[in-house]
Amino acid sequence: MTSPTAAPDTAALHARIQDSFDRSGLMLHLGARLGDVAPGRTHIHLPYSATLTQHLGYFHAGATTSIADAAGGFAGMTLAPLGHTVLSVEFKINMLAPARGESLEAVGRVIRSGRTLTVVQVDVYALNADEKTPIALMQQTLINLPEPA
Amino acid sequence: MTSPTAAPDTAALHARIQDSFDRSGLMLHLGARLGDVAPGRTHIHLPYSATLTQHLGYFHAGATTSIADAAGGFAGMTLAPLGHTVLSVEFKINMLAPARGESLEAVGRVIRSGRTLTVVQVDVYALNADEKTPIALMQQTLINLPEPA
Amino acid sequence: MTSPTAAPDTAALHARIQDSFDRSGLMLHLGARLGDVAPGRTHIHLPYSATLTQHLGYFHAGATTSIADAAGGFAGMTLAPLGHTVLSVEFKINMLAPARGESLEAVGRVIRSGRTLTVVQVDVYALNADEKTPIALMQQTLINLPEPA
Amino acid sequence: MTSPTAAPDTAALHARIQDSFDRSGLMLHLGARLGDVAPGRTHIHLPYSATLTQHLGYFHAGATTSIADAAGGFAGMTLAPLGHTVLSVEFKINMLAPARGESLEAVGRVIRSGRTLTVVQVDVYALNADEKTPIALMQQTLINLPEPA
Repeated sequence: MTSPTAAPDTAALHARIQDSFDRSGLMLHLGARLGDVAPGRTHIHLPYSATLTQHLGYFHAGATTSIADAAGGFAGMTLAPLGHTVLSVEFKINMLAPARGESLEAVGRVIRSGRTLTVVQVDVYALNADEKTPIALMQQTLINLPEPA
Repeated sequence: MTSPTAAPDTAALHARIQDSFDRSGLMLHLGARLGDVAPGRTHIHLPYSATLTQHLGYFHAGATTSIADAAGGFAGMTLAPLGHTVLSVEFKINMLAPARGESLEAVGRVIRSGRTLTVVQVDVYALNADEKTPIALMQQTLINLPEPA
Repeated sequence: MTSPTAAPDTAALHARIQDSFDRSGLMLHLGARLGDVAPGRTHIHLPYSATLTQHLGYFHAGATTSIADAAGGFAGMTLAPLGHTVLSVEFKINMLAPARGESLEAVGRVIRSGRTLTVVQVDVYALNADEKTPIALMQQTLINLPEPA
Repeated sequence: MTSPTAAPDTAALHARIQDSFDRSGLMLHLGARLGDVAPGRTHIHLPYSATLTQHLGYFHAGATTSIADAAGGFAGMTLAPLGHTVLSVEFKINMLAPARGESLEAVGRVIRSGRTLTVVQVDVYALNADEKTPIALMQQTLINLPEPA
């Protein structure tokens, strides 16, 4: 028997995050897919589509940022007590290289988990055949809140 | 007759930005619409849709950020010489309030336009009936580049 | 007679901020001076000195940032209930122009004051004879905390 | 014989950065000391002093940020061609924990070095007896410029 705030096992953790992911209309609309989930870490994948581009045909920084923000938020959510959720307070993202590739992968990792605030770092990679190129780096602040009834 | 780098008149400027906007697959996919365009300032509107939400049903920070990044980038583009384009180097955004409303409006304004780098500030508002509530604030750095042939 | 959390009058507000300012060893060590204080707004002045420079002889970004962070923090503190203080959660600053001048002036203005978090914008100017040039722009997040006993 | 832009050896690299450090009035005034220097990485140490504090007696975020900005800038400078220098375009810093300790150590590491822009990450630690606690995390953008004559 586990206490309600104990760290859930991996499958339960993935299911919990998948449930929030599936309620995120934007993630589905962009064609994003939840990848690995571990305590303090979440991956999101985004296959290329012409519906995700900026005026030069690369992934739009808004698409890159959307999965980065989500990967960071879900990474924070893996550490939040049950019955709590997290919201983005703010984030900053640097574009490191043109976001060109067959897909993007965002990996959010919690750097510091506090009672109220959580700091997360997110790496975004472009994937092409065998190559994995870092294309963006985000530093994000989350706030823990009781989930609305 | 105007020199190629002269400030274009308002209609020409709007047409130039609209052209880039229409080539941004993400803006169309999100249902965003280009609003006012003036030298150093651009507005983008985003009507609410269930395809734009996070897990609590508000606009996803990724949607808010996508139109903020685009409004900032196009604001910078209004001041770039013809034949040049701009790319986002980085930005930081604070969420000021839940992004709830019938639509969002992002207003990008150039703060400093340099030869290589441009600094832009973007306000995002949620619109509800007669109310216009600030919901996000972005500070963005752009780089000016010759447009690829 | 005022309630303990009522907005203090201007002189009392200035005295309250001046008291915190005077306990900030770094502000005194840099030679900074508290300027105007109003609800949600604080000014700090920093005269040029060779002790404040980077390797090219301008004001070091660390000096610029120190007074920007302080002006933002004190602006937030003007709106905090008595018995509370504020700490910087994070900030982002853009350098807009070389920080050259007889002095710098940082002006912090609260953009959104919440129960837990406050968002502040800070403009920093370089002053030379009659000129006042914007040289930096900061966006800052503060957290309100009960003042330690 | 080395070409003017060849990677200098370690001692020469340290001497080059030390020279710029020693011309940074602010670093000397704060009592900071240059530590390890390697290609793409620089350490700066800052012993505690009452001249570096905020109103609660901890290291002021301005002091933390000053050595973080410098460690990041010098990390970028290690990769700049001879005859070039770097300036901070912007940075964002999160405070992870109260900056309490006998000294701070900032470690700047280049994440991406481009022709014009360099992206750096900086970790700041508080040191106490045997403990080394992360207290701040910075993400910084630098611009490479020809050194003024």
